[in-house]
Amino acid sequence: MTTALPADATAFLTDFHAVAEIGATPNAGVDRQAATPEDRETREWFRTYAESRGWEVRVDGIGNQFALLNLTSNAPYVLLGSHLDSQPLGGRFDGAYGVIAGLHAADRIARRVSTGAAPHAPTYNLAVVNWFNEEGGRFAPSIMGSSVFAGIMDEAEMREVRDLRGISVREALESIGYLGTDERPDIASYAEIHIEQGRILEREGIPIGAVDASWHTQKLDIEVLGEQSHTGATLMSDRHDALLGAAKVIQRVHEVTDLFPPETLVSSVGQLTLEPNSPIVVARRVHLVADLRADDREVVRSARDKILSDIREIEAEHGLVINARDFDVRANQLYPEAGLQLTEQVADALGTGARRIRTMAGHDSVAMNRIAPTVMLFIPSVDGVSHCEREFSRDEDMVTGVEFLTEVAWRLVHGALQETK
Amino acid sequence: MTTALPADATAFLTDFHAVAEIGATPNAGVDRQAATPEDRETREWFRTYAESRGWEVRVDGIGNQFALLNLTSNAPYVLLGSHLDSQPLGGRFDGAYGVIAGLHAADRIARRVSTGAAPHAPTYNLAVVNWFNEEGGRFAPSIMGSSVFAGIMDEAEMREVRDLRGISVREALESIGYLGTDERPDIASYAEIHIEQGRILEREGIPIGAVDASWHTQKLDIEVLGEQSHTGATLMSDRHDALLGAAKVIQRVHEVTDLFPPETLVSSVGQLTLEPNSPIVVARRVHLVADLRADDREVVRSARDKILSDIREIEAEHGLVINARDFDVRANQLYPEAGLQLTEQVADALGTGARRIRTMAGHDSVAMNRIAPTVMLFIPSVDGVSHCEREFSRDEDMVTGVEFLTEVAWRLVHGALQETK
Repeated sequence: MTTALPADATAFLTDFHAVAEIGATPNAGVDRQAATPEDRETREWFRTYAESRGWEVRVDGIGNQFALLNLTSNAPYVLLGSHLDSQPLGGRFDGAYGVIAGLHAADRIARRVSTGAAPHAPTYNLAVVNWFNEEGGRFAPSIMGSSVFAGIMDEAEMREVRDLRGISVREALESIGYLGTDERPDIASYAEIHIEQGRILEREGIPIGAVDASWHTQKLDIEVLGEQSHTGATLMSDRHDALLGAAKVIQRVHEVTDLFPPETLVSSVGQLTLEPNSPIVVARRVHLVADLRADDREVVRSARDKILSDIREIEAEHGLVINARDFDVRANQLYPEAGLQLTEQVADALGTGARRIRTMAGHDSVAMNRIAPTVMLFIPSVDGVSHCEREFSRDEDMVTGVEFLTEVAWRLVHGALQETK
Repeated sequence: MTTALPADATAFLTDFHAVAEIGATPNAGVDRQAATPEDRETREWFRTYAESRGWEVRVDGIGNQFALLNLTSNAPYVLLGSHLDSQPLGGRFDGAYGVIAGLHAADRIARRVSTGAAPHAPTYNLAVVNWFNEEGGRFAPSIMGSSVFAGIMDEAEMREVRDLRGISVREALESIGYLGTDERPDIASYAEIHIEQGRILEREGIPIGAVDASWHTQKLDIEVLGEQSHTGATLMSDRHDALLGAAKVIQRVHEVTDLFPPETLVSSVGQLTLEPNSPIVVARRVHLVADLRADDREVVRSARDKILSDIREIEAEHGLVINARDFDVRANQLYPEAGLQLTEQVADALGTGARRIRTMAGHDSVAMNRIAPTVMLFIPSVDGVSHCEREFSRDEDMVTGVEFLTEVAWRLVHGALQETK
């Protein structure tokens, strides 16, 4: 852009691009998995931003980090936020955009309140959150910190979840100094802004999406058990090859999508480990995770049933034992109509326009929507790519989003959505 | 056995079962990968065995460990041995049997020589070797130490080979104190005894196999390159899933065996790593190793060509780049006829019987056969299973094998095989 940006926009972009340097990868991505040194560094940045403005910072028992602004006394908080952790070699926008946008929106509101710009005092206080382990790349399941906050996952159990190296969430958080004991704030409502990770807004030229529902999702935890043997000296007819069985499972997990109309179901295996993983040994055990998602719960269920019946065939054909277990099942969530209307009112007031949109990806707001009136906003993603270094959103779209979130949050702290839930 | 064993047999079995305690696993196997603390422990046992008998111990620049017996002056060595490293969760017989049998054979010969039992003095000296990294489970390629000794692999290059954690052979050997600088012994001939890892001897009730040839073997190093993306938010039609491509490659590597008569070709993938290996990320890269073996070189070549042409199809179908590279190609090796005849003469003299047999598995003797007259002996494997904890050979078969090896070695140190090469 050649025109001079407003100071607020410049301040936001400066901070956004500075945070993108933390854990930066050669191809413009970031690698900041949960509770790693890079994750700690973003947390220190968040803390400094808040403390330098006199905001109170808290860390709870699952590593969620909060910045609290006192706008009024003895009132619950409107909470804004997302997550600063990333996938391995992930993008710099996913999650980070929402946290930094939340901090800047809070800063603008604090200044507006202090200058007496509002017709009346805020009804609620305001807080910003950096949720722990939204991505789930290191510790499964994903959306961990917000789900514990929302009471959907058990805190003690989640603290004992281990990564592939055997390190627990508790140990990892302790090692970066972020296993807290602070009280969680009471909240009145929640708002999150995120990149779309799809192509709809870009294709239609609309800067804001108002998320009206999330897809039904589930994972399958699959363990293939064969028999370890010699790749050279064992007869083919004597082999019980766990990796061959796993290869067929991976293919069936993919092909099941062909049984439904195009793009109504997405289904992939992204994680796999094998034992013993030696070039001249037939594998005895493979562990893998399949991820199934559709707007329609019945589509997911029927795909899952087909995969399980395919698995029985693969077991019989190769003399394997294959254990499959449902986990991380997340039902469709409808976001409240009042929040969608609030978004549309702000779109009218700012003249940006907005459209209703579904989310195929999971978000912290999916968990928060279970316990508080929640608004979920999207900004456009170039080419719809995500969870990779090539992920991209334009500066001007990010700036519009921060302005939009600020206005939504302004109305929330003044009592919007409080009749609805 | 209820009958009392000769003292020599008891001594061998005591040592064999004591070494099997080093790196022992719950199901009667061992886990002693190359240059690990468990590998160091077996090396210390080997050193103590040799030094307590006054034998010189040497370690060369690739971690091969030698015990040298002076039976005569200024003569090269007849070398006996195998390897003490194992696969992850491997069997306790593979390799270890040959080294311990070699040490006990050497001990018996030293005693026979010192008591003047022989009609004339030995022509050659005698040595026993524990080869470095025969298994290749941690550091590829396998048969590393003996191949460096035989000049087939380059020592400097092999020292820089890294395991999956990035640790080099050099670093690993240094860390266990076994990166040596000693001179390698000059050798006159080589003999190795090993478990069959197949079912032929057991089925036919013959206690000794005389290996007449090795199979033609090769590996394919395969890298599948896709694009990292979100398992939830990416359209199926936009995915370039490296793990799905790899799953299809694994199946084609298996299915190619169906194009040939049963059991003429064995072909499997045993090693695979994927990046980033996160449950909700479509993989960007998978690395895998395929292992192809047949008696007939043309069968291996034609299977390899079919796999490469299948790979081109998989590339095109899924928009992937798949790089495949031949490595570790080992041509059929014929073991010398004079060695086979020597084995048959010993079988007649001892009254055990023996049969000629092929080896599908690789052995250190395959490398040594390139540079010295070599004898390779097998003893029976129960059910033919190998490279797993269930691997088993009976005490009586092991004892017969040690007696057999002793007699072969006795004849070798007295000049047998020296006209042949």
